[in-house]
Amino acid sequence: METKPRLIAALFGLTLLGATALSGVHAQASANTPTPKELLGKSTAQEWRTPDPQNLLVMQLPQGQVLIELAPDFTPLHVANIRTLAHEHYFDGLAIVRVQDNFVTQWGDPQSDDNGDKNKLKPLGTAKATLPPEYTRPFDARLPFTALADGDVYAPEVGFSEGFPVGRDQASGQEWLAHCYGMVGVGRDIDPQTGSGSELYAVIGQAPRGLDRNLAVVGRVLQGMEYLSGLPRGTGPLGFYEKPAQRVTIHSVQLASDLPAAKRPAIEVLRTDSATFAALVDAKRNRRDDFYRQPAGKIDLCSINVPVREAKPKP
Amino acid sequence: METKPRLIAALFGLTLLGATALSGVHAQASANTPTPKELLGKSTAQEWRTPDPQNLLVMQLPQGQVLIELAPDFTPLHVANIRTLAHEHYFDGLAIVRVQDNFVTQWGDPQSDDNGDKNKLKPLGTAKATLPPEYTRPFDARLPFTALADGDVYAPEVGFSEGFPVGRDQASGQEWLAHCYGMVGVGRDIDPQTGSGSELYAVIGQAPRGLDRNLAVVGRVLQGMEYLSGLPRGTGPLGFYEKPAQRVTIHSVQLASDLPAAKRPAIEVLRTDSATFAALVDAKRNRRDDFYRQPAGKIDLCSINVPVREAKPKP
Repeated sequence: METKPRLIAALFGLTLLGATALSGVHAQASANTPTPKELLGKSTAQEWRTPDPQNLLVMQLPQGQVLIELAPDFTPLHVANIRTLAHEHYFDGLAIVRVQDNFVTQWGDPQSDDNGDKNKLKPLGTAKATLPPEYTRPFDARLPFTALADGDVYAPEVGFSEGFPVGRDQASGQEWLAHCYGMVGVGRDIDPQTGSGSELYAVIGQAPRGLDRNLAVVGRVLQGMEYLSGLPRGTGPLGFYEKPAQRVTIHSVQLASDLPAAKRPAIEVLRTDSATFAALVDAKRNRRDDFYRQPAGKIDLCSINVPVREAKPKP
Repeated sequence: METKPRLIAALFGLTLLGATALSGVHAQASANTPTPKELLGKSTAQEWRTPDPQNLLVMQLPQGQVLIELAPDFTPLHVANIRTLAHEHYFDGLAIVRVQDNFVTQWGDPQSDDNGDKNKLKPLGTAKATLPPEYTRPFDARLPFTALADGDVYAPEVGFSEGFPVGRDQASGQEWLAHCYGMVGVGRDIDPQTGSGSELYAVIGQAPRGLDRNLAVVGRVLQGMEYLSGLPRGTGPLGFYEKPAQRVTIHSVQLASDLPAAKRPAIEVLRTDSATFAALVDAKRNRRDDFYRQPAGKIDLCSINVPVREAKPKP
């Protein structure tokens, strides 16, 4: 598990850079933009939420544990199928098969690769083999939406909903999860009806927003992203590993709700409709201190990560 | 060295995904958006340029070779100092000391870390220890500029100049290199006058555009980016490696112009003011085929990578 200072630094990538990063000189307290640590230190307990254990995937890799929060309000059929796959231990023993630089890390059944044996594919159990596309969803006024102020190259409107980065288009009445760093999507064949959730990918580079509205996005990596992004890139076409030995075997993927309560990851996510989240976004937009002499005054949807912390033990 | 098909796939990350990536089904020729391979296949020899050997850094890592093109028109003092450092073998035997997830990979003298011994710092030779900031530069009408059509969250105007992603601001009369994936910048202390080029970083995640105009950007990784991005993340604060054994030792960093002609990397870069580059950008903006049913119709500055290829042997 990560320590808090590091986690904050990772989530708000720029915030500590320079002050200490490039020289070892530590920033002094000043009347400048508040730091994420300062802002998070003033957050209230009510501003944090515990992910529903039914929406929390716990993936065990040799490198460490990866936690993924699912987004059933955006891709309900795919999330339901992934829950079934995890519940029935579909992913256990499968592998990370592809790491394409500046794009995605992908996992699933190695036999589904070009060189695989289709007769040896792992059965999907009671999960469905294909699902209808869930690439966008109609607006739902019941879903929270925290809009960002600075616009977006790709979508008419962007912001956060239930902790996830979202694009919206009033003209079409649709909204969708955006392919930001750490978002998890569903691989499929050319036919849009061919995704199931048995093959998943996480974005590991510059947000490939051209994928938005073309694939089902099912969630976000809350913790352990570095175990997916810090892997050697595959040398085959599209970053597939060429040799079986290069693949990373998945020990298990379980739903937290299938774990005994005592073994469930104890984490909390900052609510994206909280005052502290708004303050963090604003501080990052306008960062000015001894190091940052020229505040951007703007921030891009995919440059904002939502803070995650270890939950304090209950007294 | 990479094979061409893979290199193209890496440069235009999305282009082949889906058609083959997620299923092994190969896309059929169609009347859809032309692929990068098709467009590059029709490019003329005049549309490619050979980087000036004086601007080409050749970095040898245990994982492989990294090529970095320097941008003297944007950061002339820093580039000159880096040339001196490379010429005098400053970087040889130093190390990658930091890999912060979704942010930067950084290399330099391990003794400059917080726990280092300042008395054991490697001397800079005839290079300067500090330089004036070169975070932006005045417009120069002699520099080419290929504007992008879709706007940008951070800068009033964006495009490409001499192969590099650039932001511009007519109001201030300034332009600058943007912190896109694979761009290389100069670490410094809090004081803006403290950069030298002896500590460099490459962007390995979502473009940290908030760094724009706060740091000197000196170039772009042309090849071997996967050796910088595919490293285990450091577990210390800000992604510094905590144990010396985790660092990646740099065998050497040389200017191509210091190598015998026969040993210089034979690569070519597509000109960003060429018709083929414009066609590639347009095809990526509007990608529509059997897989991409919903073209983005837009593209972000940092989602465009400039193609690099092996030069054909001279007859």
